[in-house]
Amino acid sequence: MRIKLNHNVEQLEMSGIRLFTAQASAYENVIKLTIGEPKFTTPEPIKEALKKSLDNNRTFYPSFAGSETLKKEIIAYEKRVNGVEYAMDEVLITQGATGAIFTALGSILNPEDEVILFQPTYIAYQPAIEFYKGVPVFVDTTPNQFQLNYDDIKKNITPKTKAIIVNSPNNPTGVIYSEESLNVIKRILDEHDLFVISDDVYAQLVYKEATFLNQDIRYKDKTILTQSLSKPYAMTGWRIGYLCAHKDIIKSAQKIQQYATAGVPLFVQDAAEVALNTNVDEMTAFYKQNRDDVVSILRSNNIPFIYPEGAFYIFIDISTKGLDSWKFSTQFLDEYKVAVIPGVIFSPKSDYFIRVSLAASNHDCKEGVRRLVLFLYGEK
Amino acid sequence: MRIKLNHNVEQLEMSGIRLFTAQASAYENVIKLTIGEPKFTTPEPIKEALKKSLDNNRTFYPSFAGSETLKKEIIAYEKRVNGVEYAMDEVLITQGATGAIFTALGSILNPEDEVILFQPTYIAYQPAIEFYKGVPVFVDTTPNQFQLNYDDIKKNITPKTKAIIVNSPNNPTGVIYSEESLNVIKRILDEHDLFVISDDVYAQLVYKEATFLNQDIRYKDKTILTQSLSKPYAMTGWRIGYLCAHKDIIKSAQKIQQYATAGVPLFVQDAAEVALNTNVDEMTAFYKQNRDDVVSILRSNNIPFIYPEGAFYIFIDISTKGLDSWKFSTQFLDEYKVAVIPGVIFSPKSDYFIRVSLAASNHDCKEGVRRLVLFLYGEK
Repeated sequence: MRIKLNHNVEQLEMSGIRLFTAQASAYENVIKLTIGEPKFTTPEPIKEALKKSLDNNRTFYPSFAGSETLKKEIIAYEKRVNGVEYAMDEVLITQGATGAIFTALGSILNPEDEVILFQPTYIAYQPAIEFYKGVPVFVDTTPNQFQLNYDDIKKNITPKTKAIIVNSPNNPTGVIYSEESLNVIKRILDEHDLFVISDDVYAQLVYKEATFLNQDIRYKDKTILTQSLSKPYAMTGWRIGYLCAHKDIIKSAQKIQQYATAGVPLFVQDAAEVALNTNVDEMTAFYKQNRDDVVSILRSNNIPFIYPEGAFYIFIDISTKGLDSWKFSTQFLDEYKVAVIPGVIFSPKSDYFIRVSLAASNHDCKEGVRRLVLFLYGEK
Repeated sequence: MRIKLNHNVEQLEMSGIRLFTAQASAYENVIKLTIGEPKFTTPEPIKEALKKSLDNNRTFYPSFAGSETLKKEIIAYEKRVNGVEYAMDEVLITQGATGAIFTALGSILNPEDEVILFQPTYIAYQPAIEFYKGVPVFVDTTPNQFQLNYDDIKKNITPKTKAIIVNSPNNPTGVIYSEESLNVIKRILDEHDLFVISDDVYAQLVYKEATFLNQDIRYKDKTILTQSLSKPYAMTGWRIGYLCAHKDIIKSAQKIQQYATAGVPLFVQDAAEVALNTNVDEMTAFYKQNRDDVVSILRSNNIPFIYPEGAFYIFIDISTKGLDSWKFSTQFLDEYKVAVIPGVIFSPKSDYFIRVSLAASNHDCKEGVRRLVLFLYGEK
């Protein structure tokens, strides 16, 4: 091809997780503890709601902002669960949290604006920021047990800082930010005019009492909530989520969505109303059981790890093996037929960790970690 | 809000069509001949295919590129209908033609790159170009009966020209580009390294034999085909379409889609396979009947219009009334309860036209145009 394409987009990296998952697909009979996708199929009542919507011929153009009734359900949900009341023009229905983050970043970022990311970090933030020619600024949380430290953030704030992205419960560590961590962010927001994007996609998957940044209404105008129905309701493939923010941000985000996708199918939105009223305790209990069983195996074998209080990942320290995390994961896959994600994908500082998904079957989680013990101790 | 948002996005205009449609919604019992949306609900076999896909629990993450089986159906369709054979890495499943155009423009445009648009033009191209900081360059087709003229295009080509967008059958005029028009584009492509985006969303809605730019395989590497299932299959709300282009473009477009939406739901993709094999002759015949009936009323009342050979719009000359098209449309709505789209939305040179949608019921089309006759001749 002789004609020059958009070099900014050409430079964006494809997802390392997907690359590694694809690499794992080359093997047969592999235990996959890679991708963060529930093993569950979508609950029947949600599927039935979509079918009913189709029967009602909800096959016409959606409004760009999202259906009124779903927005009302979201407003009711956020009030009930997080105690914050949003107006109708403060909510946008999006293609998952992916769409929420994409449109939110597009609403706020001018070229060269900086966005603070905490490493290890979910890998899709960086390319979305770079798509808008923003600059990711990485703050390492490793020395602070993956919690947040005021000085570490403060020294990275410049006149170009536009936003901080917070993800709690965290992918990849499973850590929930403590009150102290949240207070660090609040202090920063008191001192600076910037936004915090609260990416709360795992907020329903918590194994202890937890509070979140978006629950403090004092910071409502500076908080951008990105949320997804993917994880709690086993709806990853449905591509539906939402954005709650100041109406000026929603207005811009809606324009981006208008020209990027023209909205989310109405029949998906109708089903989402049912999802928001679905009890997911059983699925959460399942992930917690996986967490407990895997933790028990690791503890009884003296393997260090980060204790996950939420989400469905466990970050395991593999430094005793003396391999970098990519080599470790490749060799583990090759020899033990278990696929995990190398920690280096989330941060250069995490090159002695692997991320193990706890969203697989209980058998696969336990068997995968048993094989990990064998690999770490050099037996076969 | 004190913090500055992305001013490029803030400046993007919302769709004038949607604004006018919203204005029309304030009235009761209005005949709506505004939006280009089939009155039909999606055919049952397509809806059934979605339900079956749900029963098969196709609720998990789609691959970013689209499902293999749908891509194969699209390749078969394009070979059968247009005689062009695409490879698997030359196809991307998108959120409608909207998603195809958004990702295609993002793949090719660097800031300040110019894109030639023919006025009157579909209104969503300009903001999508400006989203990427590209520059729309308008070429007026009015003096040439809405066909293309070599000199008019040639004099607008600069070293910054990256692409030309061609839309045939055309929205808003209903014109199909003649062989001469297609040869004009081909001559330009012979002389310049640039892309042509062939936005063929109305290609199935034609009322005479027609050829299209993307059918000439000599220009395959310079042609970017954007296609949608919305119009032919009455699937506007499903948000599914596709992009066919050089694999380097697809690679970049796929990255944009990955970070913008993470793909199209698998159950929608599964249903699309059935859609592509659905006969739509009946719906096309319906639109043709609307066209014929409206043309007959206009002719017998000596009202000038552009004869539509495809799509489902008719561009009617309202210059005798002596009002600009926005005032005309507002007054027509107010006094006669018929909503149409002011021509000025598509071009400042079209301020003496209105666009009337022929996608409504036959009764509404005929009754709407009968009232137009009364309005034009000053009776009430």
